[in-house]
Amino acid sequence: MLLEAIYHRNKQIWAYAYDGQTIHLRLRAKKGDLTKVEAMVGDKYAWDKTMELIPMTVFASDELFDYWECEVKPPFRRLRYGFVLQDGKEKIWMTESDFMKEPPANPDRLFDFPFINPVDVFKTPAWVKDAIFYQIFPERFANGDKSNDPKGVEPWGGKPRPDNFFGGDLQGVIDHLDHLTTLGVNAIYFTPIFKATTNHKYDTEDYMQVDPHFGDVETLKKLVKLAHDRGIRIVLDAVFNHSGRTFAPFVDVLKNGEKSKYKDWFHVRKFPLEVIDGIPTYDTFAFEPMMPKLNTEHPEVKAYLLKVAEFWIKEVGIDGWRLDVANEVDHEFWREFRRVVKNANPDAYILGEIWHESSAWLQGDQFDAVMNYPFTNAVLDFFIEQKIDAESFSNYIGKQLGRYPRQANEVAFNLLDSHDTARLLTLAKGNKDKMKLAALFQFTFTGTPCIYYGDEVGLDGGPDPDCRKCMEWDPKKQDLGLFSFYQQLISLRKNHSAMRGGTITFLDAKANSTKLAYVREDENEKLVIFANNDSKAQTIDVKVAEKTLQNIVTGETVQTQNGRLKVQLPAYGYALFKAMK
Amino acid sequence: MLLEAIYHRNKQIWAYAYDGQTIHLRLRAKKGDLTKVEAMVGDKYAWDKTMELIPMTVFASDELFDYWECEVKPPFRRLRYGFVLQDGKEKIWMTESDFMKEPPANPDRLFDFPFINPVDVFKTPAWVKDAIFYQIFPERFANGDKSNDPKGVEPWGGKPRPDNFFGGDLQGVIDHLDHLTTLGVNAIYFTPIFKATTNHKYDTEDYMQVDPHFGDVETLKKLVKLAHDRGIRIVLDAVFNHSGRTFAPFVDVLKNGEKSKYKDWFHVRKFPLEVIDGIPTYDTFAFEPMMPKLNTEHPEVKAYLLKVAEFWIKEVGIDGWRLDVANEVDHEFWREFRRVVKNANPDAYILGEIWHESSAWLQGDQFDAVMNYPFTNAVLDFFIEQKIDAESFSNYIGKQLGRYPRQANEVAFNLLDSHDTARLLTLAKGNKDKMKLAALFQFTFTGTPCIYYGDEVGLDGGPDPDCRKCMEWDPKKQDLGLFSFYQQLISLRKNHSAMRGGTITFLDAKANSTKLAYVREDENEKLVIFANNDSKAQTIDVKVAEKTLQNIVTGETVQTQNGRLKVQLPAYGYALFKAMK
Repeated sequence: MLLEAIYHRNKQIWAYAYDGQTIHLRLRAKKGDLTKVEAMVGDKYAWDKTMELIPMTVFASDELFDYWECEVKPPFRRLRYGFVLQDGKEKIWMTESDFMKEPPANPDRLFDFPFINPVDVFKTPAWVKDAIFYQIFPERFANGDKSNDPKGVEPWGGKPRPDNFFGGDLQGVIDHLDHLTTLGVNAIYFTPIFKATTNHKYDTEDYMQVDPHFGDVETLKKLVKLAHDRGIRIVLDAVFNHSGRTFAPFVDVLKNGEKSKYKDWFHVRKFPLEVIDGIPTYDTFAFEPMMPKLNTEHPEVKAYLLKVAEFWIKEVGIDGWRLDVANEVDHEFWREFRRVVKNANPDAYILGEIWHESSAWLQGDQFDAVMNYPFTNAVLDFFIEQKIDAESFSNYIGKQLGRYPRQANEVAFNLLDSHDTARLLTLAKGNKDKMKLAALFQFTFTGTPCIYYGDEVGLDGGPDPDCRKCMEWDPKKQDLGLFSFYQQLISLRKNHSAMRGGTITFLDAKANSTKLAYVREDENEKLVIFANNDSKAQTIDVKVAEKTLQNIVTGETVQTQNGRLKVQLPAYGYALFKAMK
Repeated sequence: MLLEAIYHRNKQIWAYAYDGQTIHLRLRAKKGDLTKVEAMVGDKYAWDKTMELIPMTVFASDELFDYWECEVKPPFRRLRYGFVLQDGKEKIWMTESDFMKEPPANPDRLFDFPFINPVDVFKTPAWVKDAIFYQIFPERFANGDKSNDPKGVEPWGGKPRPDNFFGGDLQGVIDHLDHLTTLGVNAIYFTPIFKATTNHKYDTEDYMQVDPHFGDVETLKKLVKLAHDRGIRIVLDAVFNHSGRTFAPFVDVLKNGEKSKYKDWFHVRKFPLEVIDGIPTYDTFAFEPMMPKLNTEHPEVKAYLLKVAEFWIKEVGIDGWRLDVANEVDHEFWREFRRVVKNANPDAYILGEIWHESSAWLQGDQFDAVMNYPFTNAVLDFFIEQKIDAESFSNYIGKQLGRYPRQANEVAFNLLDSHDTARLLTLAKGNKDKMKLAALFQFTFTGTPCIYYGDEVGLDGGPDPDCRKCMEWDPKKQDLGLFSFYQQLISLRKNHSAMRGGTITFLDAKANSTKLAYVREDENEKLVIFANNDSKAQTIDVKVAEKTLQNIVTGETVQTQNGRLKVQLPAYGYALFKAMK
């Protein structure tokens, strides 16, 4: 038994409350090393009377490890526990500090889950598990009100540059809600809409005002109301890490320097504020002088931004916040933010922009989810770049599942592109079949999928600013086939709970292979999904226990032969089956 | 290279800010496996210009792993980083998701330390690093005021039972401050002193009142003032997990049941409140009906307890709180508690009672330290029970160091016994030489040592209630030799910074051996300490680079021979040397 591979710690992602009654215990071990793992659990104040063994199962694997898990519902909401590990040769008892060859004599030295206090339970909004997001970059979605166009607005459909404008606005979104309803999405994430000087609005001038080129608070209210009427939720972008250069407090510091009453609202390293050799004398986003970092520890800054967070929920009824550059803001701020936001709307979705492994923010006290770029990387590396094989892909997916508590995985924000990346179609070098296969995985995996506006009609574009092209509204220039494909994916996802939740098991994901088959299963159903990630036709042949399966796209039924299902797929083909009871 | 053994995650104890400028990076690897480890670090927004390699060193080891560490001071308080691992055969680059055989092409996939936000930096009180604590159980320390004795008080020195009283009080402590000053301690931890029915006072009746049998708020103020005048700090015990049965809100619930306005102050599973088959229908500490668990999420309970926490700091000037059954109270409560307490006194010490690995509470947002029972276990197992060998002992110590950030280790509360355990002398079966050796280690290790009242004069006692005997004040019955020994240890610790901080390296700690030698070293000095944990005399022979060393007890100097120092020690003997420059 490779003891060095075995990992468990108290709390964090290793022992956490899934709800008010349920604790999940997890243990990591070398891949394939253990044949049986049990959790020894009981009440710490009545160990002898309550001790029992609970079997654990592997819920995810990566290239090195298996991740074992079990669920426990302790009657008094507290748990003493250890693990019993077997590999077919030896049996090892794991306590907090030791691996032992016999049962521990002193149960005091086992692990402890002290008490499930409801306030500490990580609760994520139920609606997000069933959401399909659509990301809108408002300046480029639709121009619904020419009267609010910025000066020098360029004709719709022109080439995006870092500093040009095309006149998109909130009325444009209102005008096109039918497009979203027809597509089937039920949530919108807007990049910033508050007053700012740039086309992307990440340089906020006034957090309390809708950008006049986008509309006003009444337009926003109308938009939210109409969207809600259609069952579409609205998430806005909170840029709290930094303000813009024209934000009044910063303007005051620029003008009055050390004498400004706002001087501590920012992180000024040295007065006067200037840029020396490309480096501002104050902290900024990256080294960008027009984005001064806010001092979110300052009581006035904190109070102001928390008021902003609450205002747009209460005044307009938004359903959540996406948090820009979230990891560079202090944890204390986000804890307070969560309290304020969930108090204003317990169902609000708090989504942090973090490109890295984010467990430090996903413990229940800060965010519900992060923009799941490690997922993006895995999907792009396999389906789009084709630089990793099916085995590596399954390992990355397993690793990602093993990183967070289940309630975080359930609402992970699974995107394939955004305003910060090249578009999916362009990454796929125009190959729509590859794009579809990537989207297929996105829509059949745990977490909420997001479509970047226009992807569904074949909009392309390289890295920023090219990925911020104007939405194509001419049906003749839209790829309606692609649109139908997304419609179908969304409809399938809505109709099949196992595409949204439950477990994933890879049936075929081998080294040097482009064949992928996996099972998605929950308490309602079991789906078997096949994808041929190759430019040549291939047959995928996997073991399936059930005798009859139904293709959920065509409705056809197929029979397994000798316990196996063999599926022939064209280049970049796929198939989705449901096991029949 | 055993990749399965290598561990690093972002944040937590693996990448944390030690102060406003400094990040510590840590990496775990199989013991002895790696020959060279470097951190690749740079600014994430200027990687190519700033990337550099920083060597890491092993700061602790246990039976399976080495713990590597380095310090980085990034000029813009943010860090992108990875690791370069070598074992003499291969060279591996570690990124957030991969082990690679060549340098990562895409630095975006390295680890990220987003920004050192000052409010998130875990700051522990500086005075605790230099503190020597003395734990007092007030009912049994000294009776300074007969007028406040409880009814039925028994003669001083009688046999402790769960429910008898001997009349100890705060005036008694005031009367004996000279004892503490002569001993040399500079901090007192009091078990609870607020109004309660029992002799231990863990069943609080009124958190705002000093127990009348102990004195009143004026006595406490006088005690704190007189102690402070002597440079002695005062830490009180906050029993916030549960109240006592006579706590007015609970009395109200007992009386009025579901109609009580305090019904949500507790966790009532089912009305009426009763005990069925030994199990109360409401949550309690353990299954103890007289200790109903407080609902610390309830806004009124929270406000009340936080007012208590603040009141005794502001009104009386205490220097910190020890938190009873701290792990069963919600994390949210403790975060708020830290804010209130540190706001009232930024130097206050927050010490949680947790018997287990406690990293979930030691991240900077909750406690400064916990009662370090895993340390206690290791010391008792080796020096007192003699059931583990020197190698195992050094492994447990290394494991303990590897569990927490450095600032937590520096103020760990290192106790060898308490009101909750048998006394050290009794555990040592009366062998004072063994007791001394255990104390020697306690006083030469990082973290603040604590002496349980009376240990220093030879008080003995088995488990509760026997460990709560009356303090022995008759000099003829005190072991004055033991007292001198503790005086000397304290004095040595005060005079030698390397006994309090810096690093520990084991020079001799072998399997099946009772010989122990270790180096304690900081920026000021290097100490070499020897302990013969055996009933027979032994010679310990270790490699020492310096030519001359001075015995810091006797003042004698010794010379190394061929780079080695050989020390002959009697049964349970010890020696402390300082390397001369």
